[in-house]
Amino acid sequence: MYANTDVTEVSVKGVYMIDAYGGPAPAVLLEGDDGLLMPIYIGQPEAISIGAAIKKETMPRPLSHDLIISILSRLDTRVKSVLIDDKIDKIYYARITLEKDGKLMDFDARPSDCIALALRDDAPIMVTDSVLARAVVNKEKLHGAKSIDGFMR
Amino acid sequence: MYANTDVTEVSVKGVYMIDAYGGPAPAVLLEGDDGLLMPIYIGQPEAISIGAAIKKETMPRPLSHDLIISILSRLDTRVKSVLIDDKIDKIYYARITLEKDGKLMDFDARPSDCIALALRDDAPIMVTDSVLARAVVNKEKLHGAKSIDGFMR
Repeated sequence: MYANTDVTEVSVKGVYMIDAYGGPAPAVLLEGDDGLLMPIYIGQPEAISIGAAIKKETMPRPLSHDLIISILSRLDTRVKSVLIDDKIDKIYYARITLEKDGKLMDFDARPSDCIALALRDDAPIMVTDSVLARAVVNKEKLHGAKSIDGFMR
Repeated sequence: MYANTDVTEVSVKGVYMIDAYGGPAPAVLLEGDDGLLMPIYIGQPEAISIGAAIKKETMPRPLSHDLIISILSRLDTRVKSVLIDDKIDKIYYARITLEKDGKLMDFDARPSDCIALALRDDAPIMVTDSVLARAVVNKEKLHGAKSIDGFMR
């Protein structure tokens, strides 16, 4: 599907508060097969949405991502995969691939939206190897990262 | 479309910081024909998204609502209308009606998502008269409300 580009499937380890330049900030932590970790800083609502998806929790009112999945489902469309494929000036770029009647459609999207939607539709989350190589961090750097669960209520 | 329920179309006056119980909070201000104002408190990302839609601005990266509209457009689906139809314990309830091939589909959604999407697709925003009657506030109560533009950058 992603011709001429080496990609790696990652899993979502969780949502954490990680020390950034201006203090702790919410980040989703992606993990490769080899245990390498890749943090992507995200907004608080995206952290809540991704956290809910990880725990398969339903929020009292539908979040934007829940609404998207409801709409896709009604339109017989599903999330095929998402790909984080670039990083420019600390901003990650991604795209989401939807499938309807065997036809694939690609959309430019933020990684946080892509991850929140992929988790809800059990779709694989891919990262290009070139982005992964630049994005992985040492586990020591994440020392002291706190699971965001406590912040979510 | 909304049988047996009296509804009124409202316009979006803007996004403001309005004094709430715990200090100023972002709210979208809806306005009826008669100039009556109805504030709905929303989150900051929704405030940014609605603010961008009012000003027809495109953000550098697609917001969740931009992604939804892109997806709907590719699936030949449009926002037909949105309706804010209940208020329980200070929480507003709403639904969004989509149209594809002349067929209407209703989805439960938060008012902030509904308004952000309706504005992007030039769809009418409706409020049931019973909700409107309970939700409108005196203009004096909004004295000191500040346009949120300054908070958005």
